[in-house]
Amino acid sequence: MNKFIKTAETLKPELYNINHEPVCGAKAVKDENHLHGWKMVSDDTVGELIHRNGSDIYDFGKHLVGYLSFDIEYTGMFDCPLRLKIIFGEIPAEVAEGFDGDSGALGRGWLQDEVIVIDDLTQRIELPRRYAFRYVRIISEWNTGAIKFRICNIRCNSVSSADSSCVTPLLESVPEIYHQIDHASLNTLKNCMQTVFEDGPKRDRRLWLGDFRLQAKLNYLTFRNFDLCKRCLYLFAGTVDANGRLPACLYEKPEVHSGELFIYDYTALFVPTLLEYAEASGDWKTAEQLWPTALRQLEIVMDDIDANGLFRDNGKWWLFIDWSESLDKQTALQGVVIFALKQGRILAEKLNITNKMNWMDKEIERLSHAAMKYMYDESEGYFVSGKDRQLSIASQVWMIIAGVIEADQASELLRRCFASQETVMPAGPYLYHYVLEAMLIAGMEDQALELINDYWGGMLAYGTDTFWEVYDPNDLYLSPYGNHLMNSYCHAWSCTPAYFLRIQKA
Amino acid sequence: MNKFIKTAETLKPELYNINHEPVCGAKAVKDENHLHGWKMVSDDTVGELIHRNGSDIYDFGKHLVGYLSFDIEYTGMFDCPLRLKIIFGEIPAEVAEGFDGDSGALGRGWLQDEVIVIDDLTQRIELPRRYAFRYVRIISEWNTGAIKFRICNIRCNSVSSADSSCVTPLLESVPEIYHQIDHASLNTLKNCMQTVFEDGPKRDRRLWLGDFRLQAKLNYLTFRNFDLCKRCLYLFAGTVDANGRLPACLYEKPEVHSGELFIYDYTALFVPTLLEYAEASGDWKTAEQLWPTALRQLEIVMDDIDANGLFRDNGKWWLFIDWSESLDKQTALQGVVIFALKQGRILAEKLNITNKMNWMDKEIERLSHAAMKYMYDESEGYFVSGKDRQLSIASQVWMIIAGVIEADQASELLRRCFASQETVMPAGPYLYHYVLEAMLIAGMEDQALELINDYWGGMLAYGTDTFWEVYDPNDLYLSPYGNHLMNSYCHAWSCTPAYFLRIQKA
Repeated sequence: MNKFIKTAETLKPELYNINHEPVCGAKAVKDENHLHGWKMVSDDTVGELIHRNGSDIYDFGKHLVGYLSFDIEYTGMFDCPLRLKIIFGEIPAEVAEGFDGDSGALGRGWLQDEVIVIDDLTQRIELPRRYAFRYVRIISEWNTGAIKFRICNIRCNSVSSADSSCVTPLLESVPEIYHQIDHASLNTLKNCMQTVFEDGPKRDRRLWLGDFRLQAKLNYLTFRNFDLCKRCLYLFAGTVDANGRLPACLYEKPEVHSGELFIYDYTALFVPTLLEYAEASGDWKTAEQLWPTALRQLEIVMDDIDANGLFRDNGKWWLFIDWSESLDKQTALQGVVIFALKQGRILAEKLNITNKMNWMDKEIERLSHAAMKYMYDESEGYFVSGKDRQLSIASQVWMIIAGVIEADQASELLRRCFASQETVMPAGPYLYHYVLEAMLIAGMEDQALELINDYWGGMLAYGTDTFWEVYDPNDLYLSPYGNHLMNSYCHAWSCTPAYFLRIQKA
Repeated sequence: MNKFIKTAETLKPELYNINHEPVCGAKAVKDENHLHGWKMVSDDTVGELIHRNGSDIYDFGKHLVGYLSFDIEYTGMFDCPLRLKIIFGEIPAEVAEGFDGDSGALGRGWLQDEVIVIDDLTQRIELPRRYAFRYVRIISEWNTGAIKFRICNIRCNSVSSADSSCVTPLLESVPEIYHQIDHASLNTLKNCMQTVFEDGPKRDRRLWLGDFRLQAKLNYLTFRNFDLCKRCLYLFAGTVDANGRLPACLYEKPEVHSGELFIYDYTALFVPTLLEYAEASGDWKTAEQLWPTALRQLEIVMDDIDANGLFRDNGKWWLFIDWSESLDKQTALQGVVIFALKQGRILAEKLNITNKMNWMDKEIERLSHAAMKYMYDESEGYFVSGKDRQLSIASQVWMIIAGVIEADQASELLRRCFASQETVMPAGPYLYHYVLEAMLIAGMEDQALELINDYWGGMLAYGTDTFWEVYDPNDLYLSPYGNHLMNSYCHAWSCTPAYFLRIQKA
């Protein structure tokens, strides 16, 4: 174990535990007006005696991450082990449909169901694995009929490293919908906050650098668990490859190890993440210790800047920016690198580390100049990307965040691009976060609030109380994995509306 | 807990543990010449790395009862919980076909498969439930392909309360087939000997009185675990109903309780079971303590003897004798009761308990007389049963065991009945045991050996090393439960050939 991981392990948080009971029994009814065609209605028959076969859905009323336990009461002669299938759902479709179909591109193991066979009905059943769910369906497989039984005292012991008592609520004067959005944002963050900032507590349960940065930003304004952020920074620093490059994600178990995936934009964003941590916590010592790691990331991303000062895809990176398949990412990545350099420059200054300042200044200048020269279409008045000179929101957003274009021109730029039919629009919450950042830089507070209401509020309208990994208002079945049941419905990178609502307020 | 159960619990045995490794990997190949159309052939590819999906069968080479554990070795990135389905088979069809079809009349929970989801591949996987099996199939459900893995160090920790070192082997001069049959008999008994004499370690794992008597008889000549027999006698005595009637079966868990099934013939056989225990062990004190319970069973079964001295079905009992559906059981049950009375008479004499001797003598006389008068067909020269005067092996066998007909007439009687086309033949191993008993009484040692060779040897020819709950040479799919996969293939009441081979020898 290297020294960074050792430091990280000393910061492993205890988890807060809370016991939850279901709010009601439920049944899933086909209704095309609801998410994935399933409406959940209350069902008073749930919890009655089950004879031979039975299937009960319990609705815990909110998204939880934790451990399920229950008792079984029975009458009659227990003449055969009881075989139960237990399906967990963040959304109704999971429990309504089950997972017997094609599981899609990711592993079947992510779809949350268990089969248990019980030899002793008098013992409390405690499932050892952690699940992320609001709904639980318990299906009894065929038994001889010699017993009737009921599930009772069903509980979820939820876990999180977030302390809700630290959160200052929004002002009462804020409109109700934003209170709801704030609540779901905080739920999303809280349920992802475990012994690391997980991307999704259902799936992948990993620490991803891009998600972590957004989670940390909201955490500083709410739960204020600085040690968890510090732990995650050290975990990343402890899992660099032989070249000193940070992985895009890492695993805690069985021991901390790199995910061996490398995302260009995430690598670049380590520097801003470190600066933001130090600014929020005042812990400049950590920033100093991790400065060499941060600087190394800047050097690494600069290796893919060509003689003209432009980012060139060498084919060895995963370029992320957004899930959109059609998006050309060159210009957005150019913006990410410029932003990272600028944040690095600020951090160096704060730490009084002077030897790289000149290099950063020159590179910021060179890359910004190149962006304006090669990526800005003067005649159209917006940034384009790639050899086909693609127009996208992503390109504008990152150029605004990078400060390549002045803030006073940014609102006009965004408005124009949103209005164009040709524009490649954001495909998911992660990029929408940066759209909001760009809007705030551009002074478009009202539009930012409107976007929060439309996009994040759109998810809430489907009855969830956490925000999703994937949300396209026009295609609720969209999934990068070929199966909407595999999507995470409580996902780190969707948690930031509460961040914007709080910096708005401030 | 009553005093009998308290005594029983002091006699709960420690189990012997032995670790077993598979003898080879295997695959199931369709072949109509094999049991249920499945031939197991060795497969060297088992244990190689599995990528995405895979299914491996391990053959432990013999029937075992115990606990499975294994390690997982993997290469690549473990990016998703691993979901495995594990199927246990006493016979090839179970692992070859799996249990997704109709499970039949008994509960799905008896069919031995588990689904496990593994979050930590570095931990040894130890399944907590006990299984009865020779074959284990491990199926990997769809994973992302980021890992390749192999199952390794797979072990079965077998358990039994039988001490194999107590067994004196058959003489070497005994023909090989009988050595094999003896070996399978002892396996069957050993694997059923747990903290009680179970009927079948796969299903139902209960203590049944009829099975127990046969197990005990073989145990006295081999493993000689007298305490386990004593425990079982006390368990039965401790679970009588309000009327003092013994249940046909009982459960140990969660606490000892009656199975609330009542089999007329089993109830009657408690007396012989108790006598045989005392004779084998020399523990007449137990016989004395349990005499009132034993006597009560005789009184209870005598309640269903009518004024003519004949057994009459009052519709309130389960009458067993054999699984055969067409069998009329009146005459066989008449024989069981007479036999029980006679054994009771012997036991009373041994215990010097005189107050019921006269009653037993008179009832033996009355019932035997009635049997000859109403159930013996003088003109045909055999016993008949019921109003349709049915000819069956069961009727003759029990009249011979009861001594209603003299031993020197018995062989002729049996020969005639076996030769007749009309005879209802035995349908299962339990009744075949009593056929053997009758044959020995009749001095038909050669025919008994032939029957052992044909019937029990017939099971062995299908490659098992334990004897089955159900075996009809003409219908290998026969099942009282509508599913041959639900049948037990290591079943108490089939274990007695080794008993006959040993009393033969003596």
